[in-house]
Amino acid sequence: MRLADVRPLAAALAAALCATVAGAAANTPTTAEIVAASGREEWRALDPARTLYMQLPSGRVVIELAPEFAPQHAANILKLVGEHYFDGLAVIRVQDNFVAQWGDPDEKKPLGSARVKLPSEYVAGYDPSASFLRLPDLDGYAPQAGFINSMPAGRDPAARTQWLAHCYGALGVARGNDPESGNGSSLYVVIGQAPRQLDRNIAVVGHVWLGMELLATLPRGGGAMGFYENASQQVPIASLRRAADVPEAERIALEVLRSESRSFQRLVDARRNRRDDFIRNSPGFVDSCNIPVPVRIRRPE
Amino acid sequence: MRLADVRPLAAALAAALCATVAGAAANTPTTAEIVAASGREEWRALDPARTLYMQLPSGRVVIELAPEFAPQHAANILKLVGEHYFDGLAVIRVQDNFVAQWGDPDEKKPLGSARVKLPSEYVAGYDPSASFLRLPDLDGYAPQAGFINSMPAGRDPAARTQWLAHCYGALGVARGNDPESGNGSSLYVVIGQAPRQLDRNIAVVGHVWLGMELLATLPRGGGAMGFYENASQQVPIASLRRAADVPEAERIALEVLRSESRSFQRLVDARRNRRDDFIRNSPGFVDSCNIPVPVRIRRPE
Repeated sequence: MRLADVRPLAAALAAALCATVAGAAANTPTTAEIVAASGREEWRALDPARTLYMQLPSGRVVIELAPEFAPQHAANILKLVGEHYFDGLAVIRVQDNFVAQWGDPDEKKPLGSARVKLPSEYVAGYDPSASFLRLPDLDGYAPQAGFINSMPAGRDPAARTQWLAHCYGALGVARGNDPESGNGSSLYVVIGQAPRQLDRNIAVVGHVWLGMELLATLPRGGGAMGFYENASQQVPIASLRRAADVPEAERIALEVLRSESRSFQRLVDARRNRRDDFIRNSPGFVDSCNIPVPVRIRRPE
Repeated sequence: MRLADVRPLAAALAAALCATVAGAAANTPTTAEIVAASGREEWRALDPARTLYMQLPSGRVVIELAPEFAPQHAANILKLVGEHYFDGLAVIRVQDNFVAQWGDPDEKKPLGSARVKLPSEYVAGYDPSASFLRLPDLDGYAPQAGFINSMPAGRDPAARTQWLAHCYGALGVARGNDPESGNGSSLYVVIGQAPRQLDRNIAVVGHVWLGMELLATLPRGGGAMGFYENASQQVPIASLRRAADVPEAERIALEVLRSESRSFQRLVDARRNRRDDFIRNSPGFVDSCNIPVPVRIRRPE
């Protein structure tokens, strides 16, 4: 009797175990599981020399510049930041489902040693040896879509050009109709559905890795294109600094999952083909703007 | 001499005129221009019987239900609304770049005469005679993408199914892992990059036409998946009413540009192929989630 009792129990246990193992194998991992299983070398620390901290009343926005896509714009922005150009300026425009933009409300502040006019730099030269995680799916806005340095990007092999895509968190250089009118003294961040029609039409020069919610929750402006209608609505920028210029104790040690890592590939696969108890119809597709890139605070060595 | 002087002037004037005319013809119209040129019959008024007003501390959110996509869910929501189920409940979750969700924080309030369990209704039967503005471009998440009743939608002719797409402003029915666990007592709205991987996995049952910024600017929740961690952070819903149940003087006479209208087609064309002084590289493509649908207050007859 006892033996007879034990056998079904053992069988049930084995079956339960197999179900768990089979389930684990069949289910796509969550982002948290992928991050937990990742290796230390799969993460890169943000470089303090190209990382910016923008201090708003609600907290700090952490932005990484990508000079490889718009070198003269990145250099100009670093010059402006180094000379404290943005301190005391403000977020002047927040358009719902589009962008938050900051700069000089009066457009009068001298740019110091920064340049007023720059070449357009909407696209950068295409370096075939540079790392590019190409997504397997078609993209309507680019011949090839994927990630470069963990930032969503497009490539055109025929023209040998590459550019950062206007996904959520992309940092763009505001400009007028003149393609050379953008100089980095007014910048915007995408806070809504990716306006990919702007790709290759504006210099995108970086990405926000932390604090997006501080920009995305700002009151929308009531004027045309979301500009605030009076100065009292503008959101003051206390300071905008290079991380390298901030005392080390005040820096935040952010790491981004490398797009060339195996874990990032697992993340892409998990977004494309999702098998779990919630999902009935796996999408079988993923858009480059629809892969939230994991970011974390660096763990002590 | 005078004649000789006049001739070049006339030629110059003619040339300038031609340039203007040619320029006007070549430039794609702005949304404002398309709206200004539209005919009255190209707009449809929201039906008060399926339009909801959600009163938040910051103002009113106007939602239109789409019973043709999820009839039992729409009916259940109308029952809940009619019995004032949502009054005094709250926005309980706001996840950055994803969704704002409301319902009963305690999950205890009785549903009254509404049903607790409903069939899944992730997709609806495909009616070939119903109006569908199909976009010409490929869509990764749907065999066909376009608009039905001015709401972004997908279609699968092989399966003869159609569904509302998870674009900015889409109203979805929150649920657990059980496909029949959603009943409309907890609802969410997309406030970020379109999570199209959820299409055909959740019942999408309507669209927000006004007040999106009231949801999109709410503080993000600090808990897992953006849930607020304590009750004081939840955003109270004063009331959620059918427009038909609100005195006429308190209604807002909203009109939406019909997706089957010529002006809507002009809008799609203008988003796909943009020629103006700002744009250097026309996208030649448009995503269904990237066409903001014009809405206006009805003009008096």
